[in-house]
Amino acid sequence: MSTLTRFSVAPLSDMTRKLADVASGRADPDLVIAGARVLSTYSERILDDREIWLSGGRIAAVKPAGSYQGRLAASYDVNGGIIAPGLVDPHLHIESSMVTACAYAEAALLNGTTTIFCDSHEIGNVMDVAGVEAMLEDARQAPLSIYLTVPSTVPATSAAMETAGGDLTPDKIAAIFDKWPEALALGEKMDFVPVAMSDERSHAIIAEALKRGRPVSGHVYGRDFVAAYAAAGVTDTHEAIDREIANDLLEAGVWIFLRGGPPTTPWHSLPEAIKAITELGASHKRVAVCTDDRDADDLLMFGLDWVTRQAVKAGMKPEQAWAMGSLHGATRFGLGDEIGGLGGGRRADLVLLDDTLQPINTWYGGELMVEDRKVTATLDEALSERWRYPDAAYHTVKLPKDVKLIPELPVERVKAHCIRTELPGIMAVHEVIELEPANDWQSHFDRHDLCFVAVVERHGKSDGNVAHGLLSNFSLKRGAVASSVGHDSHNIIVAGTNEADMQAAVRAIEEKQGGVCVVADGKVRAMVELPIAGLLSDKRVHDVADDLRVLKLAWEDAGCSIPYMGFNLIPLSVIPEIRITDKGLVLVPEMEIAALFEPA
Amino acid sequence: MSTLTRFSVAPLSDMTRKLADVASGRADPDLVIAGARVLSTYSERILDDREIWLSGGRIAAVKPAGSYQGRLAASYDVNGGIIAPGLVDPHLHIESSMVTACAYAEAALLNGTTTIFCDSHEIGNVMDVAGVEAMLEDARQAPLSIYLTVPSTVPATSAAMETAGGDLTPDKIAAIFDKWPEALALGEKMDFVPVAMSDERSHAIIAEALKRGRPVSGHVYGRDFVAAYAAAGVTDTHEAIDREIANDLLEAGVWIFLRGGPPTTPWHSLPEAIKAITELGASHKRVAVCTDDRDADDLLMFGLDWVTRQAVKAGMKPEQAWAMGSLHGATRFGLGDEIGGLGGGRRADLVLLDDTLQPINTWYGGELMVEDRKVTATLDEALSERWRYPDAAYHTVKLPKDVKLIPELPVERVKAHCIRTELPGIMAVHEVIELEPANDWQSHFDRHDLCFVAVVERHGKSDGNVAHGLLSNFSLKRGAVASSVGHDSHNIIVAGTNEADMQAAVRAIEEKQGGVCVVADGKVRAMVELPIAGLLSDKRVHDVADDLRVLKLAWEDAGCSIPYMGFNLIPLSVIPEIRITDKGLVLVPEMEIAALFEPA
Repeated sequence: MSTLTRFSVAPLSDMTRKLADVASGRADPDLVIAGARVLSTYSERILDDREIWLSGGRIAAVKPAGSYQGRLAASYDVNGGIIAPGLVDPHLHIESSMVTACAYAEAALLNGTTTIFCDSHEIGNVMDVAGVEAMLEDARQAPLSIYLTVPSTVPATSAAMETAGGDLTPDKIAAIFDKWPEALALGEKMDFVPVAMSDERSHAIIAEALKRGRPVSGHVYGRDFVAAYAAAGVTDTHEAIDREIANDLLEAGVWIFLRGGPPTTPWHSLPEAIKAITELGASHKRVAVCTDDRDADDLLMFGLDWVTRQAVKAGMKPEQAWAMGSLHGATRFGLGDEIGGLGGGRRADLVLLDDTLQPINTWYGGELMVEDRKVTATLDEALSERWRYPDAAYHTVKLPKDVKLIPELPVERVKAHCIRTELPGIMAVHEVIELEPANDWQSHFDRHDLCFVAVVERHGKSDGNVAHGLLSNFSLKRGAVASSVGHDSHNIIVAGTNEADMQAAVRAIEEKQGGVCVVADGKVRAMVELPIAGLLSDKRVHDVADDLRVLKLAWEDAGCSIPYMGFNLIPLSVIPEIRITDKGLVLVPEMEIAALFEPA
Repeated sequence: MSTLTRFSVAPLSDMTRKLADVASGRADPDLVIAGARVLSTYSERILDDREIWLSGGRIAAVKPAGSYQGRLAASYDVNGGIIAPGLVDPHLHIESSMVTACAYAEAALLNGTTTIFCDSHEIGNVMDVAGVEAMLEDARQAPLSIYLTVPSTVPATSAAMETAGGDLTPDKIAAIFDKWPEALALGEKMDFVPVAMSDERSHAIIAEALKRGRPVSGHVYGRDFVAAYAAAGVTDTHEAIDREIANDLLEAGVWIFLRGGPPTTPWHSLPEAIKAITELGASHKRVAVCTDDRDADDLLMFGLDWVTRQAVKAGMKPEQAWAMGSLHGATRFGLGDEIGGLGGGRRADLVLLDDTLQPINTWYGGELMVEDRKVTATLDEALSERWRYPDAAYHTVKLPKDVKLIPELPVERVKAHCIRTELPGIMAVHEVIELEPANDWQSHFDRHDLCFVAVVERHGKSDGNVAHGLLSNFSLKRGAVASSVGHDSHNIIVAGTNEADMQAAVRAIEEKQGGVCVVADGKVRAMVELPIAGLLSDKRVHDVADDLRVLKLAWEDAGCSIPYMGFNLIPLSVIPEIRITDKGLVLVPEMEIAALFEPA
């Protein structure tokens, strides 16, 4: 198991005398990083001709170049490169990466990210407190500083609408705060309508955070909700999708985390939201950047460093953008004296940047983890043995023996309530299609561009709940696709042109206890195995990224019109207009169960 | 006793549902402040045409003007005036005002200040933990939000150099943190040389704060000390006296509190230090403003509002300056979600300003406390009965029965180590004067502009320690002046032209158990009585201010060349070059005791 963790650096309270000795020249640093320009996130300037003295994994001092005259310290010359604090991601879900916290660390460090605030909402939905705590153990073993924003909205809706594996009550959330000091905030309170409506349970959960002096993270859409949401005590959000709501949120006292993501996805709201600063003249001091959701493949390409550069592209100065990527998130969560800048006593979480803010090297707690954009032997060794999740986490896909995955063929003329998928893949349109009587499903599919969809309960909590539906415009040509990541309850979602391939896909997921797969002619054509909680691989990040690239090709080959991440959202019954859970078709925002067919 | 205190407003955790109801329009506000411009400390803009909805002493929402259409809420029209958050003073000593915390509140509210962070260092020096805790009780009864930065450096030096009433060990400081939730930080760690030198006790005290996640406030002079001081974990200071050290401190990760004060005093370092922003281009996001020390008289004229306006005078935009006076201090101490801005859910601590940032009205917790620059009946009533300190606090001047206050007249030619006072009154110059044998002291005094000075131990800890010295350039014409405020141990300091008046001055202080007085011809000509710990009056602030104005006139009349506040610093044996404590003359920074006379 990795011996390089957040705890490898002693608390500052144990180190002040040694650091004062080093800063005063009475003791030698361990390492001098020489020949640097320094990006100051405090003053938002780049300072020439500096050197950084490290001791015990912390910064003893930043000094004028050439100050160290001793011989005992190791030296690392960066030849005029920029040294900046490691990035701090104030909001993300590790589960979206499909790797464990330990494996996530590798990608983060390659991206110059040294601290993350994760909301382990997905594993909480599957395994309740046990899942959150398993990921916390995982996080403690990682060569990365990982803090928790406690999942606040599990389940996302209610037992009437879906069967979830988790039910995080106010009491359970209070217990997590009291047990885990790294639980620094309440995670995104995504049920913003109940919050605005003064729902009792939602506010009881918020109260557990506020009572402990912990901030509350948010998720809100719609300018009309902002005032009530802020009044409820929520003080950050990463869902500002345009200039106006970003501006409203800032004025309501809410920190903004500008979310960047692959430019073709709706996650990339930064370019619009940042206009509250660049066009409306708001200060950026309460604005940070974040990633939110990234699979392993995208994470390597579109990390927080990439998001930070998008802020520059949108008009911020590089020093401002990097401060938004580091100090501001740290300050928001009360860690500004520990990380986010190159001040005395801070952790030596440092990045060497080129002039375009591309990370070249990353030091974590004073250890060189990435050099010349490659993992060092130190990090490679730290990652070779990773924390293993408890056995229970490997046994979370509990399916009924026999389950029928397709509906009966209607014998009369009917209206079918179909789920129409559309790019970029978040909205699901409610489309009503009249089906004339036919001899087989294929003729319906050909005429209306339809395929089957089903959700199978997998937590072993029901007697094999399954719901049937029809996808329109999904354009699957043959076979089936399936996933054990089906937001937010993570029941199995499967779509297909025929039941045999759908059964094969579901059984493949059952066999591996989780995954996303593409099946044709009874055979698995591509699969990312996710044996931990049905959400996470236990491989390293590059291996999962490789698997994902193969899956994405097969997915495209099969004709699917939206990416697998959009497919995984089809059960997410908090986003309009029609969703499918194990309880049936759910109309949003009405929150009503609809029948698939009704007489025409 | 006042029923309007910090606790009159319920914690946000108890109020989120009600506030969401009000913000959503499902319930009525208590009060609508209409017709306002809003100074946003978040975005640093002034927003036109707003109204503020209050409920339960908190802000439910800031809405466009005219939004409230109900009839039940009270309304207060400010006719286009600016509504801003109440000011937050991140560093001051209540004792300098010579009034209690309850009485201090009156001046603060008149100045638009609604939250202060006080370092009760002086009462700690006199009464140890009991003094700090008495002031905390006082603070809890005040109509003002008062947080504590725990006194960190009591005594300022050591028992070899002075006799103090307090000795705040690491254990005692730890106990204060654990008992008092309002103890949000460690107070100014003013022994910066020992801190930089890795002194064991100094660092043990810092560790008690850091272990609890509490920040450490500082006090440092000299650019050479900055690196080691920051490495020791100190993350703010209010002693940046010029552009260069302010800049160094910011880069070392230290928050800067720009200190303003009466322009003729050395406390007014803001105009130089702010040049780190206005000339060197540093961001102001980690910069606040503070008052530090103000007597009751100056407090009413040069409050934090005045300091904030000085920042505007120095080149900051009004919105930036007000943010430095409110949100930034709140953010530094982790209260940015509760105060410092007009966000949803925040305390309704509000100020009505004119366009020059002069406070006109102050609401504290939604209650109108100051209207048209005058105390309201509500506040007047709240202040009419104030918390009474325990009896022990009224009995802290314990003097020996007989004490000789002047030295023997030398019979030989001697060199005298004199304390030369100079404006503005902080430095005390070490002047060596040769005294020829003479028949009486008066001929020495006439020739060299000298007078007597003595310090008498008053904590009842010695057998009547007294030290004798000579002041040069103090220019006292007749009589004596004396004070029970003698930084930092607060023994009695007395200066005079003759022993009889000096004895009368000391006995006047003993009789009142504290004060500052001017005596001539055996009679007290003016006196501010300070019966609580020998530091504080138990009167209201305007009464003490009146007494102070009379004292200052008498002080000037007596010819004293430096003000009484400078006189009170003469025993402060941490500032160069020569000081007098009850142990004798102390040379600084050598920290050696010197004899008054040596053979010439």
